Amino acid sequence: MIYFDNAASTPMDEEAYNLLCLDLKNDFANPAAKHKLGVNLSKKIDRARNELLDLFKLANFNAIFTSSATESNNTIIKNFENKSIIYFSCDHPSITNVCHSKGLNFDQCITDFLNEETQLVVLTALNPQSGHIINLLQIVKEIRVFNSKIKIHLDAAQAAFKTEVDYNLVDSFTIAAHKIGGPKGISALIFKNDFNLRPLLEGGGHELALRSSTPSSPLIMSFIEACKRADLNFEKNFQTAQEVKRIVMEGLKESHKNISFPFENKSFKTSAYILCVKFIGIPSDIILRHLEMKDVYISSTTACSSKISGYNPMLDALGIEEKFHKNILRISFGFSSTKDEAFEFVKIFKGMVNEIKFLIK
Amino acid sequence: MIYFDNAASTPMDEEAYNLLCLDLKNDFANPAAKHKLGVNLSKKIDRARNELLDLFKLANFNAIFTSSATESNNTIIKNFENKSIIYFSCDHPSITNVCHSKGLNFDQCITDFLNEETQLVVLTALNPQSGHIINLLQIVKEIRVFNSKIKIHLDAAQAAFKTEVDYNLVDSFTIAAHKIGGPKGISALIFKNDFNLRPLLEGGGHELALRSSTPSSPLIMSFIEACKRADLNFEKNFQTAQEVKRIVMEGLKESHKNISFPFENKSFKTSAYILCVKFIGIPSDIILRHLEMKDVYISSTTACSSKISGYNPMLDALGIEEKFHKNILRISFGFSSTKDEAFEFVKIFKGMVNEIKFLIK
Repeated sequence: MIYFDNAASTPMDEEAYNLLCLDLKNDFANPAAKHKLGVNLSKKIDRARNELLDLFKLANFNAIFTSSATESNNTIIKNFENKSIIYFSCDHPSITNVCHSKGLNFDQCITDFLNEETQLVVLTALNPQSGHIINLLQIVKEIRVFNSKIKIHLDAAQAAFKTEVDYNLVDSFTIAAHKIGGPKGISALIFKNDFNLRPLLEGGGHELALRSSTPSSPLIMSFIEACKRADLNFEKNFQTAQEVKRIVMEGLKESHKNISFPFENKSFKTSAYILCVKFIGIPSDIILRHLEMKDVYISSTTACSSKISGYNPMLDALGIEEKFHKNILRISFGFSSTKDEAFEFVKIFKGMVNEIKFLIK
Repeated sequence: MIYFDNAASTPMDEEAYNLLCLDLKNDFANPAAKHKLGVNLSKKIDRARNELLDLFKLANFNAIFTSSATESNNTIIKNFENKSIIYFSCDHPSITNVCHSKGLNFDQCITDFLNEETQLVVLTALNPQSGHIINLLQIVKEIRVFNSKIKIHLDAAQAAFKTEVDYNLVDSFTIAAHKIGGPKGISALIFKNDFNLRPLLEGGGHELALRSSTPSSPLIMSFIEACKRADLNFEKNFQTAQEVKRIVMEGLKESHKNISFPFENKSFKTSAYILCVKFIGIPSDIILRHLEMKDVYISSTTACSSKISGYNPMLDALGIEEKFHKNILRISFGFSSTKDEAFEFVKIFKGMVNEIKFLIK
């Protein structure tokens, strides 16, 4: 199997997996229980919280564990309900579907839209479809100059441990375990101590009274393990991903003249882990079907937009003409991707193009 | 170790555990992905959803998987924000801390409080502290006679698979995996098809567009496995729990004259899985500490109320005088509890009472 859909979800890191299976067996108590088993789990979770903040080199920040990046993004945005929020239409649906105003296109200048009413700006560090990386320093500077009181939330679900981000620039950010070798069902919302956050889930007052629900210490510990491993191997993983991406790009370019890379070699940087491909003349669905018959898995759009057929608002906001929305592929690499896989992928892709070339218009 | 705090969280059922570890390794893809790996996971989740509805013998209901009972309860209650809601003060904090009106005491008659404005009644099938089981049929009948349009939500987190409940009587209900041998971090909200629910988490439109977030198929499958096992072994587990409870009650009665059971032998039924104990003259914290030194774990209050010291609103609503709030113990049994453990528990408890009797006032 070649799995190049890591931006949707990654296989579990081995250490994170082993720790999870161990903790699921042993750490069955409720971390809110008063007895030793509970108290120990509660301490374990607080240590994990501090380790997470240390990994990101954050001072004056705190973190809560949530069930998903969606929950983390929703928590922030719903704190600003009925307030003026600026976001981009190419952001994840957990942002675009919660903000009620109109979003900006990815190439629009934020300063043209800031006004007296603006209370929150939501940014995506690394776009899950195009892989483009925003110039965070510059955008934040522009916002702060306009009004230093505007809160800035960063969706770093795709960016964390995959590209350098100065998290200290923003007021809050979202990361997700299953994008970096951790389990599905656990994420974090990290925020400045003075954020004055209201909880989305209310009840027993867990997670600093900001996220009620019995915390799952096994999921949390496994998540932190995945973070630590991703942090430790950042440079090595990055170098490999760059190589893998280069091999795939070169191979794809050779495989058919209709193939191009709409977000590469532009004025912005793109991620080493995401390659967005335009293949004119053949619907991406057909390519996906042919590849999966050969046990190769890539995607067209983000998993969260996968139910959309035809017009895709994220692609639109990224500047892709509607007539090409059905021609977009997303190939995304993970920490377990190898150069050998990249060469094998190119071979299979070329073979597939050869088989279906009679279909290409 | 003797673990009698199963109402807070249970050890994992072996089959549910094995399935979880298997799926965490294999089912790493995103269930929303368009390729075969995603589609297969999505189908698996939909089968799990149907199996769950079948287990509860429900027609005209649907289910979404959430991260916690808190999230399930919150989802319903926040659908009725600024509307008139009736609930009980002895309910779980994920109900009492979200409803803004005053709650009823557990012995108050609901019909005295229903009025033209009432849109939602929240009931708890089995109270997590006292173990008392409500007369659901009678209460629902009274509500329906008053106004058949009032929605009835049932928190069945403690009741599911531990006592017989006719779920068809209500409009929605909550169950949680970690109370029945499943993993922490996964729960369900089950509701009538015509409920017209609005989502709490919004984004990619997962879970029937009612709960966005990448679904964790491993957690879901493990949860369903735990449900199936609990359903299959319902009668056997129940008989054992009754025996275990009887042994513990008799042993405790013998161990000290200050011990009583404030919710047993009343006009209502109590759960076979929960025993609430009043031990006058000695703070429950001291008992908890002494028992944990002997590797025995019980609780005083519910885990979600564990941060409260002194006055406890749940105990108050249950009719326990404030001066006795510090004298309450909760002993709760699970599917893995045995009669041998019960005898051993009684032996250790009696020994402990003997050691600390000089402290008892």
